[in-house]
Amino acid sequence: MEKAREILKINTQKRVEIKDITTEVSEILSRSGIKEGLLNVYSPHSTSGVVINENESGLVRDFKLTLEKVIPQGAGYQHDRIDNNADSHIRGFLLGGSQTVPVENGKMMLGTWQSIFFIELDGPRQRNLTVTVIG
Amino acid sequence: MEKAREILKINTQKRVEIKDITTEVSEILSRSGIKEGLLNVYSPHSTSGVVINENESGLVRDFKLTLEKVIPQGAGYQHDRIDNNADSHIRGFLLGGSQTVPVENGKMMLGTWQSIFFIELDGPRQRNLTVTVIG
Amino acid sequence: MEKAREILKINTQKRVEIKDITTEVSEILSRSGIKEGLLNVYSPHSTSGVVINENESGLVRDFKLTLEKVIPQGAGYQHDRIDNNADSHIRGFLLGGSQTVPVENGKMMLGTWQSIFFIELDGPRQRNLTVTVIG
Repeated sequence: MEKAREILKINTQKRVEIKDITTEVSEILSRSGIKEGLLNVYSPHSTSGVVINENESGLVRDFKLTLEKVIPQGAGYQHDRIDNNADSHIRGFLLGGSQTVPVENGKMMLGTWQSIFFIELDGPRQRNLTVTVIG
Repeated sequence: MEKAREILKINTQKRVEIKDITTEVSEILSRSGIKEGLLNVYSPHSTSGVVINENESGLVRDFKLTLEKVIPQGAGYQHDRIDNNADSHIRGFLLGGSQTVPVENGKMMLGTWQSIFFIELDGPRQRNLTVTVIG
Repeated sequence: MEKAREILKINTQKRVEIKDITTEVSEILSRSGIKEGLLNVYSPHSTSGVVINENESGLVRDFKLTLEKVIPQGAGYQHDRIDNNADSHIRGFLLGGSQTVPVENGKMMLGTWQSIFFIELDGPRQRNLTVTVIG
């Protein structure tokens, strides 16, 4: 098995931010030299998510509003007594913090309208994602 | 590393449709000849999901009603001004579009009551899933 | 490719229980002897989830209350006429039943505040998770 790994550093600017990281992940894949296999993006942070969907500005706003509607901030959570970010954890709990994408001919097999998003749920922060390619 | 890959073509008939693809994925695994490893089903579509659960007709209806309850169609989304399928994207955003399943003795290690479902969220359409086996 | 696999047996005590299995999974990784690659935890049960987040007792209670709020038990589901656990399936449908984590120097690359949780949604039961390491 071939294996390559890089840490992808991301700076977020807002409490909730949906950041397109497709270009950065593609560059890591190119540098790995691996042509066939699987790529895994993993967030070691409990107040974030990694999701694949379409990067359209209205839709990105809809994603944020949906998170606030389904898991409202400050809705009497017990964890808020310790650290005021229970909503951030619960949203991460539902979204999940990694994605595994097939690789062919040195490219991720993303659909035409697919981007990889890092979902910051408790920013602004510096985040370090782990990108692993196996082939 | 051994690697095999096939594109699984699916035709859906309804806007929201939960389609059991276990048989088709199992056949791809058999053709791959790989006996031990991991199998990844990936949807390159942003208005779909790939989920594993039980195929019982009442439950499948409950899944659909839950999607409509948690993420209602046409609830004032911004993306609906561009393309009338914001709910389809947001449901895909929450469900996720891939699954990774262990493989042993040439079979997926699914539980007795588990099926792999393709969740069509903006059909009817032809969809092309990527099934990758590594071993 | 190196591959190792073990079944992790878990006993749950409650209907809904969020159980930290990080130690057990780490021990399986150690026994595998694999130093670099990916680790997959897979639940072959349709009324459970596998999630990574922070193990703080207030937060764990918030997770449970959120599951009950978003997917209430006994809310007129069709599957409840057959087997009184539709909510358990629907919660599993949304949470997902596996996680794939990068491995480096023989350790999972979990964040400081990350634990792997088995989410029992229809206990008490004995559950058998599949832990696969490839490297």
